Amino acid sequence: MHIEPIGVIRTPFRQAAGTPLQPSMAQGAEGTVEVFAEYAAGLKDLEEFERIWLIYWFHRAAPAELVVQPYMDSELRGVFATRAPSRPNPIGMSAVKLLSVEGALLRVAEIDILDGTPLVDIKPYAPLFDHYPVRRCGWLDRRSRRDALADDRFQEP
Amino acid sequence: MHIEPIGVIRTPFRQAAGTPLQPSMAQGAEGTVEVFAEYAAGLKDLEEFERIWLIYWFHRAAPAELVVQPYMDSELRGVFATRAPSRPNPIGMSAVKLLSVEGALLRVAEIDILDGTPLVDIKPYAPLFDHYPVRRCGWLDRRSRRDALADDRFQEP
Repeated sequence: MHIEPIGVIRTPFRQAAGTPLQPSMAQGAEGTVEVFAEYAAGLKDLEEFERIWLIYWFHRAAPAELVVQPYMDSELRGVFATRAPSRPNPIGMSAVKLLSVEGALLRVAEIDILDGTPLVDIKPYAPLFDHYPVRRCGWLDRRSRRDALADDRFQEP
Repeated sequence: MHIEPIGVIRTPFRQAAGTPLQPSMAQGAEGTVEVFAEYAAGLKDLEEFERIWLIYWFHRAAPAELVVQPYMDSELRGVFATRAPSRPNPIGMSAVKLLSVEGALLRVAEIDILDGTPLVDIKPYAPLFDHYPVRRCGWLDRRSRRDALADDRFQEP
């Protein structure tokens, strides 16, 4: 199964250290998504969505580990119970705020992604598809850290 | 960028026609996720999550189109403004209910995925990462169809 980048994500974050962990912790962070011209026709109708999923390749993540210490905890956790980037298939997803669509250039806010990240897919964010009530949220319910920023633990050396 | 399957998804849905469109429309649909043994260690701590994201490969989707008629509308829409499977990188994501973890076998409910689908990743579903208030939801706000089931329009011939 082979993936081709469909664009590139530009952000102020050049290193993992100091990058927001999630869009919900990335107030004020803005970036752009440059979609390659050959895919621009697929952006029709996107501008009417307030938020979009960016699906991307963790291009600077260290090799996969099956057990990791996530940013927000002091215990070791199974990687599939975390959103850590060093995972068997290093695919990330972030629901960012869409500010505008100008041709094949998207302006986005609340972005938690490293500069230069290859874009894999864009999907509309929709409560009908993405909102589910949950009462239990595993180790995240009792996480020991509330830091909003990453460090370099999952970055390639 | 190369992806290796980390498991396989088993469901009652052998054909696109009649498959639920999203987990929110898949009440009563149960399935299993068979994670390959070499990745089982990564499932630690997952069972405490009530809902999980399955990231998967649309293995039976017809070739990508940039403009599609989504299941829930009668108009043509840019593929990135839809969740249609026939997309440049055919990656799907579904937030399914996790019933149990038995070794490397997950039992799940509210599943909207075809039987035999290659599993690419698992991530915990967490309101902190996945819930955002949105007021505008593009064409979905005025969709002309409320069907909860797919047909064969995006299936390989």
